[in-house]
Amino acid sequence: MVKVNLQTKLLGANELIAMQNHKRFDEQGLLAINLMSSPGSGKTSILEKTIEALGGKIQIAVIEGDLYTDQDARRIENKGVPVIQINTDGACHLDASMVGKAFEDISAHSMNLLFIENVGNLVCPAEFELGEDCRAVVISVAEGNDKITKYPLIFQRAKVVLVNKIDLIEYTDFSIEQLKEDLARINPDVRVFYVSARTGQGIDAWAEWLLEEVARKRTKV
Amino acid sequence: MVKVNLQTKLLGANELIAMQNHKRFDEQGLLAINLMSSPGSGKTSILEKTIEALGGKIQIAVIEGDLYTDQDARRIENKGVPVIQINTDGACHLDASMVGKAFEDISAHSMNLLFIENVGNLVCPAEFELGEDCRAVVISVAEGNDKITKYPLIFQRAKVVLVNKIDLIEYTDFSIEQLKEDLARINPDVRVFYVSARTGQGIDAWAEWLLEEVARKRTKV
Repeated sequence: MVKVNLQTKLLGANELIAMQNHKRFDEQGLLAINLMSSPGSGKTSILEKTIEALGGKIQIAVIEGDLYTDQDARRIENKGVPVIQINTDGACHLDASMVGKAFEDISAHSMNLLFIENVGNLVCPAEFELGEDCRAVVISVAEGNDKITKYPLIFQRAKVVLVNKIDLIEYTDFSIEQLKEDLARINPDVRVFYVSARTGQGIDAWAEWLLEEVARKRTKV
Repeated sequence: MVKVNLQTKLLGANELIAMQNHKRFDEQGLLAINLMSSPGSGKTSILEKTIEALGGKIQIAVIEGDLYTDQDARRIENKGVPVIQINTDGACHLDASMVGKAFEDISAHSMNLLFIENVGNLVCPAEFELGEDCRAVVISVAEGNDKITKYPLIFQRAKVVLVNKIDLIEYTDFSIEQLKEDLARINPDVRVFYVSARTGQGIDAWAEWLLEEVARKRTKV
């Protein structure tokens, strides 16, 4: 089928560009994290709190992906870190080429940690390597427990899962035991942080982990 | 660009099949609703409560779209209505051809109202007509207020917006005034229902509206 062949070709080209991006990230000695979730799980709010928690200990930059608006980029800019907006003009995911071009515009800044906030979507972004070191997927407890089994690819490839809106858990049917079981089945090594971008709960542990990973990356390259 | 041309062609073919689907729905005198949302907004839970609320007053059938699982179809089956599962095998939206084939397997049932539950995704499903009479989009108050401006296409084309998890609103920053402003700008005629699939709040008003629309469709065809 034409559709499948074309997708295979597009993915092949994307992976080549992703490898180039990764090489450039290595050359600058920075850790690049592809941050993904459903719309409204709280990616940008988590980034805001993370930047506050890391408070100048390392140099952070952000690439923001969104269909049309720059709302998220403006929120990040208010936190005082370099940020660049990619508008996909309706496309449902970031690809390596978009990220490569955006990185050119931001690479003059010195940085140890680059967050790439993907388009809000649990399906399409999972297929596209951007050149990142690792992927972090946010899930909100308000979304229910069945997301892991229904959207397995994005959770399989994640190094970290951030369980957000943990302050709301008592008002929902979300089960942490069920989450652990489902993740153990498809991605037993994944690291899980329970956070609330609203109250700040759990952000420190996640920020600590980021500092360790940044240090590890710097000794590696 | 190859990608754009191919998409145009695929959409053109999709629209032809969508028109055929619509003709078949008209011939059976049924109202078809394309139900869309982010993952975890509560489409299936709303369907469960809606089927209960309509309690045999009309004949309902459901086409369930999901990447891999049949979890949602099993939940609907437990409510005693005919249901058929479409697994998109990783694809991020339903298309008219999938729905046409699924409808063949369910069309022997007599029905007045057909729900087509789309894949959880605010981006890609908005582009694909399925032959439906109208679209209903679910948004949960836990997702925040910026979804309308960030994913405008899906909300522009909706006849109904169901604001779900309204029982959680006091624990979130969600503003109904902001929602009304944003919808008024892009889709002033949209009908909004405030519901909780968990407590049942607001489901009766939505069910009443469905009965009116089903009656209107039957007098029209």
